[in-house]
Amino acid sequence: MSHNELEQLRKQLDDVNLQILELINKRAEMVQEIGQIKYKQGMKVFDPVREREMLNQLIENNQGPFENKTVEHLFKEIFKAGVELLELDHRKALLV
Amino acid sequence: MSHNELEQLRKQLDDVNLQILELINKRAEMVQEIGQIKYKQGMKVFDPVREREMLNQLIENNQGPFENKTVEHLFKEIFKAGVELLELDHRKALLV
Repeated sequence: MSHNELEQLRKQLDDVNLQILELINKRAEMVQEIGQIKYKQGMKVFDPVREREMLNQLIENNQGPFENKTVEHLFKEIFKAGVELLELDHRKALLV
Repeated sequence: MSHNELEQLRKQLDDVNLQILELINKRAEMVQEIGQIKYKQGMKVFDPVREREMLNQLIENNQGPFENKTVEHLFKEIFKAGVELLELDHRKALLV
């Protein structure tokens, strides 16, 4: 019985993994859009003040079980991946 | 006009951030449930084969813009945070 329960929970976990994947890629697309606007306006892509604001908002809304420092760590990694994606797009654009 | 566009995109990004937060915490709760079953059955909590299977499934389903290596990196961080949460729960249980 517990084995079935485990299998079911694993399937649910797979679903949640895929939902997270979809959202982080959706986020990445939005970061690309924002990046294009910023490039056109000559603005810096990386904005540490805005990043801190986003982290504060996430921590305010964190209901757990992950602790705030874990939420902050995971989102910093997601933000960094977004900035790296923009840098890659920008380098590609310069090569065209 | 572009400034408004930027503001709108940022609000949308905030929403997506909060959706990701909700899902990673939902995932963490499920990991805790799975962990409890595993502890009861004397199974090891960390299962590298299962982790590899989850990563492969994510890469198969990755539509970008994040590259596979980025998806793998971000999910390894999410998985690690889950395992750390279980270890913390387990230590707390031992102290009761």
